[in-house]
Amino acid sequence: MRTVIAARLPRDPANDHTRDMAEARRRVVGEATGVTLEHVGAFSFDPAVVRGNIEGFGGVAQVPLGFAGPLLVDGEHALGEFFVPLATSEGTLVASYGRGMRLTREAGGITTTVIDDVMQRAPVFVFCDARAARAFGGWVDEHFDDIRAVAEATDSFAHLVRIEQYAVGKMRFLRFDYTTGDAGGQNMVTKATHAACAWMTGQGLSGLEHFTLSGNLDTDKKHSAVNNLHTRGKRVVAEVTVPAALIEQVMHTTGAALYHQRQLSNMGSLLAGAVNNGAHYANGITAMFIACGQDVANVAEASAGFSYTELRENGDYYFSITIPSLIVATCGGGTELPTQRECLEVLGCFGPGKARKLAEIVAATVLCGELSLGSAIVSDQWVSSHESFGRNPPPST
Amino acid sequence: MRTVIAARLPRDPANDHTRDMAEARRRVVGEATGVTLEHVGAFSFDPAVVRGNIEGFGGVAQVPLGFAGPLLVDGEHALGEFFVPLATSEGTLVASYGRGMRLTREAGGITTTVIDDVMQRAPVFVFCDARAARAFGGWVDEHFDDIRAVAEATDSFAHLVRIEQYAVGKMRFLRFDYTTGDAGGQNMVTKATHAACAWMTGQGLSGLEHFTLSGNLDTDKKHSAVNNLHTRGKRVVAEVTVPAALIEQVMHTTGAALYHQRQLSNMGSLLAGAVNNGAHYANGITAMFIACGQDVANVAEASAGFSYTELRENGDYYFSITIPSLIVATCGGGTELPTQRECLEVLGCFGPGKARKLAEIVAATVLCGELSLGSAIVSDQWVSSHESFGRNPPPST
Amino acid sequence: MRTVIAARLPRDPANDHTRDMAEARRRVVGEATGVTLEHVGAFSFDPAVVRGNIEGFGGVAQVPLGFAGPLLVDGEHALGEFFVPLATSEGTLVASYGRGMRLTREAGGITTTVIDDVMQRAPVFVFCDARAARAFGGWVDEHFDDIRAVAEATDSFAHLVRIEQYAVGKMRFLRFDYTTGDAGGQNMVTKATHAACAWMTGQGLSGLEHFTLSGNLDTDKKHSAVNNLHTRGKRVVAEVTVPAALIEQVMHTTGAALYHQRQLSNMGSLLAGAVNNGAHYANGITAMFIACGQDVANVAEASAGFSYTELRENGDYYFSITIPSLIVATCGGGTELPTQRECLEVLGCFGPGKARKLAEIVAATVLCGELSLGSAIVSDQWVSSHESFGRNPPPST
Amino acid sequence: MRTVIAARLPRDPANDHTRDMAEARRRVVGEATGVTLEHVGAFSFDPAVVRGNIEGFGGVAQVPLGFAGPLLVDGEHALGEFFVPLATSEGTLVASYGRGMRLTREAGGITTTVIDDVMQRAPVFVFCDARAARAFGGWVDEHFDDIRAVAEATDSFAHLVRIEQYAVGKMRFLRFDYTTGDAGGQNMVTKATHAACAWMTGQGLSGLEHFTLSGNLDTDKKHSAVNNLHTRGKRVVAEVTVPAALIEQVMHTTGAALYHQRQLSNMGSLLAGAVNNGAHYANGITAMFIACGQDVANVAEASAGFSYTELRENGDYYFSITIPSLIVATCGGGTELPTQRECLEVLGCFGPGKARKLAEIVAATVLCGELSLGSAIVSDQWVSSHESFGRNPPPST
Repeated sequence: MRTVIAARLPRDPANDHTRDMAEARRRVVGEATGVTLEHVGAFSFDPAVVRGNIEGFGGVAQVPLGFAGPLLVDGEHALGEFFVPLATSEGTLVASYGRGMRLTREAGGITTTVIDDVMQRAPVFVFCDARAARAFGGWVDEHFDDIRAVAEATDSFAHLVRIEQYAVGKMRFLRFDYTTGDAGGQNMVTKATHAACAWMTGQGLSGLEHFTLSGNLDTDKKHSAVNNLHTRGKRVVAEVTVPAALIEQVMHTTGAALYHQRQLSNMGSLLAGAVNNGAHYANGITAMFIACGQDVANVAEASAGFSYTELRENGDYYFSITIPSLIVATCGGGTELPTQRECLEVLGCFGPGKARKLAEIVAATVLCGELSLGSAIVSDQWVSSHESFGRNPPPST
Repeated sequence: MRTVIAARLPRDPANDHTRDMAEARRRVVGEATGVTLEHVGAFSFDPAVVRGNIEGFGGVAQVPLGFAGPLLVDGEHALGEFFVPLATSEGTLVASYGRGMRLTREAGGITTTVIDDVMQRAPVFVFCDARAARAFGGWVDEHFDDIRAVAEATDSFAHLVRIEQYAVGKMRFLRFDYTTGDAGGQNMVTKATHAACAWMTGQGLSGLEHFTLSGNLDTDKKHSAVNNLHTRGKRVVAEVTVPAALIEQVMHTTGAALYHQRQLSNMGSLLAGAVNNGAHYANGITAMFIACGQDVANVAEASAGFSYTELRENGDYYFSITIPSLIVATCGGGTELPTQRECLEVLGCFGPGKARKLAEIVAATVLCGELSLGSAIVSDQWVSSHESFGRNPPPST
Repeated sequence: MRTVIAARLPRDPANDHTRDMAEARRRVVGEATGVTLEHVGAFSFDPAVVRGNIEGFGGVAQVPLGFAGPLLVDGEHALGEFFVPLATSEGTLVASYGRGMRLTREAGGITTTVIDDVMQRAPVFVFCDARAARAFGGWVDEHFDDIRAVAEATDSFAHLVRIEQYAVGKMRFLRFDYTTGDAGGQNMVTKATHAACAWMTGQGLSGLEHFTLSGNLDTDKKHSAVNNLHTRGKRVVAEVTVPAALIEQVMHTTGAALYHQRQLSNMGSLLAGAVNNGAHYANGITAMFIACGQDVANVAEASAGFSYTELRENGDYYFSITIPSLIVATCGGGTELPTQRECLEVLGCFGPGKARKLAEIVAATVLCGELSLGSAIVSDQWVSSHESFGRNPPPST
Repeated sequence: MRTVIAARLPRDPANDHTRDMAEARRRVVGEATGVTLEHVGAFSFDPAVVRGNIEGFGGVAQVPLGFAGPLLVDGEHALGEFFVPLATSEGTLVASYGRGMRLTREAGGITTTVIDDVMQRAPVFVFCDARAARAFGGWVDEHFDDIRAVAEATDSFAHLVRIEQYAVGKMRFLRFDYTTGDAGGQNMVTKATHAACAWMTGQGLSGLEHFTLSGNLDTDKKHSAVNNLHTRGKRVVAEVTVPAALIEQVMHTTGAALYHQRQLSNMGSLLAGAVNNGAHYANGITAMFIACGQDVANVAEASAGFSYTELRENGDYYFSITIPSLIVATCGGGTELPTQRECLEVLGCFGPGKARKLAEIVAATVLCGELSLGSAIVSDQWVSSHESFGRNPPPST
């Protein structure tokens, strides 16, 4: 039963982002498939606003959105309480993050810190041999100011911080590190690096055989060790110390039990070759990204991270999460779309100067989810399996 | 300037998924933040339908949705042409995937194959020493039928295929592998494994000190080497051979140039420690996941993958992508939400018996995006930098 | 100053392993380079014994060899006390391992457990497409008994346990898992797998385009995630619980301090993307491998591993190490060489039936080195830096 | 059958490195185990020379040593032809490397390039929170000159090049990068970093809770992603272009066949999560390390690497290997031991100013082994399995 579609999607080169064109496309799709696209067509805005965001516009995905919080953040950019919009279809997700927000609020709030902020494009230059590639490396260092000038001339927000260099064989991979204001910046750095490389390759580089604008060391839309070490987007930490009494009262477990679970999770992660020793960073990040007009595909990078905890002598529990590659924007991309802008505004994160604030709120939210799910795993075990094996207390307590 | 929020989000224990409660929450959030949530509130369905999908429901994120295609798939489950709904705010994404769809359609379509299909929950059992842990491993093998019976009794769709075993120190990590019908299955396998483990720990396991339902070897919502090797969700391959003439005509480059770029991308990926040697699998997957009601956080797993290509003597180019951990559902989760269901129906992928079909369409879409972006990188280089270094032809051509 | 060598190394096709031929080669090398190879020529055995072990034989490397111990092992194969021969030129190595042996002996000895035992060869079969590759996977399962019969016919010690299967694109990687008696087994499994594959490719496999005996998934002489998960050689665990008093007395630190260091080391390893969260497994393994005639290049695999520890309430410290890929032999290879055999005999590990015993002794030795170096790092800090920052007690104690 | 050893190893605090003490230890070990340590005791030098290299000295491991070559190197430090000493007990190893040396010599020799040269110690500083840790990062940058002065005062050969910084949670991992003259340098950098850190922690660092000299980010005696990216020891490349005719004549295969195998090996490595996409770098490195008095445990790091190749239009084959973490010494450690020194002298690599030369020779040797084994795999397949599936030519040729 092979599906054959004779029709083609209509397109109006003059003005393709209109209600008429959207309807025309829904009609073609609907007729070809027998589906009535009623809800997809039920959007609340003028399609002109999505020009630059999408091609072949036909309507919207309506993703359920819930609010959690207040989340109490003690950040350098985000300070105070926030209702957090989460767009998801996974039941219990909002409730679980909400429970973590209650716990951390009662614990005095979450401290957040943006440690690094950098966006990359990583071209590769192939030379006739390794020596020419190495010489080029020196040339790049010497001409950094020139290269930066060319790169930065392409966009007033692109600031070239440094150029990392990596060498294999006769190749030289450069990793251009930029700050990009409050935009995600992927396109900005591509354009800037393209200009820089055009200038560089125009200087008569000795022994150059080949150049390409990306050699997969960026690494865009995928996790990598180099991102873990050197950041892509924001590197952000969220920390909290939860009093022992609160853990028992809200989470029905103990710091000691959570700490023991941490040991096991660390071993499981090392054994699995996992990119994150935590539970489910990706859940909260994804739900906030959809709600807030972020580039959701960057969950590929943002899902990596490090959970580090300490058990105090008095039973209090220090918990931190580090997200090394959190790419967020409060300008450009999807941030000005109608619902997305409203959600950013709810967080006080719409527009210039807000990207680090948004990064802090995301990190604080992730921490809440880790505490909540981690406790759920441990306490469930504690209760339901108590009779069968609970007589052996956890060894490290 | 610390934000203080005195208000709390209202909740109606009796019936929380109503227009009134959604509005009440928007009002509280709006008053606390000074934001009018007009568009978030402009959803087109009865909130009762999102019961089970979200808590604290306040409205929707309207994510722009475009159509690309037709995509021509020669699958075992997906056969024929499809209009593909993509929800995104990243400009050029739909156009780029559309270009790849045109190329592959003219090349005769994309062959897709689901190689494996399995969902996991991975508890860890800690014993008094490594010998007791090893003995337990043997016990599990001997009692597999019993364990399976208990696990499968929890859900008629959960079928326990096997239990992988991994050993470190005095721990035994079990990785329960299930098929879960056409649901994503994460919750199903948690419940089934919980029951199985309760039965197991009730058998008086010799030397058991501790048990926990997840020891981070699942690995859920994060990439891992074990997932790459052993699949999480569907393992799916998409393949196409593009005639030389078509590459030049549509993509403005050659198979030889693409093949040379593949060598560089492989090295960049190995050097970076990247989880994917391709370009941007995550983009297409994310856009389809949002449109089609999938668990979008699973982009964390699905963003990993392998691109393998061959250059034929006649210049034709064989291109394949493998996604080892693609988690898709056509039942449950967000699949029955209004816009999401419409998009699944457009693909003929709504309801039971359709998950593998959906996996095939996603994989074919990913392949189109890889061909399109890969060609764009290569051809741009070819044109713009031709004068400066193009006199040296790429070495492998 | 380019070195030119006109001479060629002599070779006697009839009998190349003689004192005369060794001397002839030393003379040629000596004359070409102006070096007198006095010590290299001072070996104590008839060169005939190294036939099969080396070509171009010219003498020996005399690697200093020290004894440490007694090491007290409570293994299933190694039981009691052992003097451990360690060949190294790194000062303090023998002393440090010796200190750990004293500590663990006073703690009652080290429990060792061989968990798995398997050696691999991993051919790859390339088909016309992914479906043919998948079908081949099923064919392999169906014909496992036939394949095993062919493979095992090549060597009475080769026993084919299972064939793991891994799929990417149109390739099927098979990972043949054998036990190989008390030999290292790499050559044995190559020969057996070669025979098996010759039989397989002779069956007219549908769609087969290409076959090669190794597709780098073995993975031989290099670490890999698949080895970490599925073992190469012996998977062996060593465990000890050290009383609090003993840690203070012998190691001048505390279990709490060691446990805190473990947390930091885990994070460092995860961040670094390291293949071992311990300190220096490779040191002890290498020194034993050289002394005992093992294939020292397998340090590449054996250097990976997992340290897992627990702090008891009373301050006692449970410490375990797991080596997932320890390749050892007590037959074949270099085990019958004169000094190497003597060292194996000192351990009671020469000849058939002893490989697991040797694996246990190596693992116990590694554990001693980890305790010793780990304590040295922690106690040094504790003492020397006490005044400057010791007023802040370690947070987790 | 538990082995009990009542005796203890004798030790002479005044002068432990004598023939008498060595014999005394052999006697104790011999009596305890019933083994006559004849060959272990047959060393040719005064034990006084191994003072500083080993404790508990009892004799030597005599490792068979063969010569291969001449190897033709076109390096910046190694120039001309060399006989290469290889200490091993693995039959065919020397012959196989020798075959690669013949091939590359006839191809005009191997170009070698040392790209980077750096040795590390990586302390971790734990603070009260992430902000204090971040502030410390800035402090380190500001005080780099002071830190360097303190570090370099400990050893005239230690030069502190830079301090890399890595951040997780409230921790700051510093990775001190030194050049260390022609010594391996691990102890040198430990001492230098210890002094630097003592000075740093003495400056009253705000919020410092804990410090430890190594947090497993060095990463010593184990492979890591950070080493792959940033080098440990020498980063060295070896390159050769082998004419098509020579491949057929010497290796009985073709560049096209080797290139196809390279594609499969790359995929296998990516799938396996392997630290090396080549065949057996570790074999040649280990054999040279044993012969030449290197720290053989560093095979753990040196076994990682990257093979990158290109197939020319005329069938010539460009082959390169990159070893990112090759730790070699021509001073200190085991380099002055009798046989080891002779072997270094054979290479013209004994003493100051020779470490990079040695690195180049090792890399060139590794390249020979890769070409030889790679060809053996491919050609064997080609011949023996020709009838069954050879009718399908390899797809990329």
